[in-house]
Amino acid sequence: MALADAAATASKIASPIWRSKLQASLVSNKNLVYSRYVQLATVKADGRPANRTVVFRGFLGDSDDALTFVTDSRSRKIQEVACNPAAEVAWYFPETREQYRIAGNLTIVDAAAGDSALQAARIRAWSALSDAGRQQFGWPQPGLPRAQQDPTAWSGAAPGPQDPPLDTFCLMVLRPEEVEQVLLLSNERYRYVRQELQESGSTVSWSEESINP
Amino acid sequence: MALADAAATASKIASPIWRSKLQASLVSNKNLVYSRYVQLATVKADGRPANRTVVFRGFLGDSDDALTFVTDSRSRKIQEVACNPAAEVAWYFPETREQYRIAGNLTIVDAAAGDSALQAARIRAWSALSDAGRQQFGWPQPGLPRAQQDPTAWSGAAPGPQDPPLDTFCLMVLRPEEVEQVLLLSNERYRYVRQELQESGSTVSWSEESINP
Repeated sequence: MALADAAATASKIASPIWRSKLQASLVSNKNLVYSRYVQLATVKADGRPANRTVVFRGFLGDSDDALTFVTDSRSRKIQEVACNPAAEVAWYFPETREQYRIAGNLTIVDAAAGDSALQAARIRAWSALSDAGRQQFGWPQPGLPRAQQDPTAWSGAAPGPQDPPLDTFCLMVLRPEEVEQVLLLSNERYRYVRQELQESGSTVSWSEESINP
Repeated sequence: MALADAAATASKIASPIWRSKLQASLVSNKNLVYSRYVQLATVKADGRPANRTVVFRGFLGDSDDALTFVTDSRSRKIQEVACNPAAEVAWYFPETREQYRIAGNLTIVDAAAGDSALQAARIRAWSALSDAGRQQFGWPQPGLPRAQQDPTAWSGAAPGPQDPPLDTFCLMVLRPEEVEQVLLLSNERYRYVRQELQESGSTVSWSEESINP
């Protein structure tokens, strides 16, 4: 099922419990700017894991539970996702002492992506970035050896929020399939698994199970 | 090379730069208890990534740069590591706005592990846990459906720090092979790669490279 179809399906159903919980956690932890920083694990072509901190940029839509992030088309994770789209986010909320683990598949929305809804989401994410955030997409290629003397490389003016996104700018969409929440304060743990009920018209539902912490 | 041999080799060399930096970061962020919480990525048997928050329990030794964590022998990561020992830690320090990525292989040190130095390290880690930390290793199997009514399962007395570790208690040792540090405040990024110089008697050294952020 294409991502746009999935979005249309998702719009028919109520918000899953894990999303309501996650939104409550974001509110409870909103005084810590880094409570929106999560760790995203993928698998490299050689079968070893990669893990890095990324900023949560919101859900794809009010009735679409995919999580969005942004990335540079020149970063290593683009190749990793092309080989293996599987990902798991680990998200720790310091204020409420909760952890969410969110597993699913990643879709990269680059400048050439044809899906108009996803391309529109990419442009919205670009406009919502800070000047410093937009500026980074004009920097030299991430991860390459740093040239000794090139101060101009890092100080170019940032494109404005209404300018078209630079070609290096990508939206990264994680469509959850399984979510686990651990509450350290109360020693509770819950597992949510996405289920498509084909017989009833591709309705999506989520199972909820209380499991041992 | 066995882990104990590696430890002996490591003792011959100076502390690598990344370790000195990491120790400075721990000091600068010590007011945030969760600055010792890191996200550990592994790969599951089906080739998908797993990612969870674990607590850094210190280096294996003053002159041994392996990172230690603890885990339960019944947790899913034990099977994952048995199939694929590769791991990457993502470690974000909120106060100094730095990220370390630490990639290497994991070794699980369980109750039956024969290496006496590692078994001693396991017992030290057990003794250093809080009562609440030790108590968890006597809880019902993590991840299984939670029984409706069994209050006694969670409230048993914790073994003391001088008691022998419960059989479920494992030390988890990550021996780094590549480390990256990103400094968000100064837009610097460094890569460190472990190198064994066989011709000079298995001396270990670390390369350092400044790379584009």
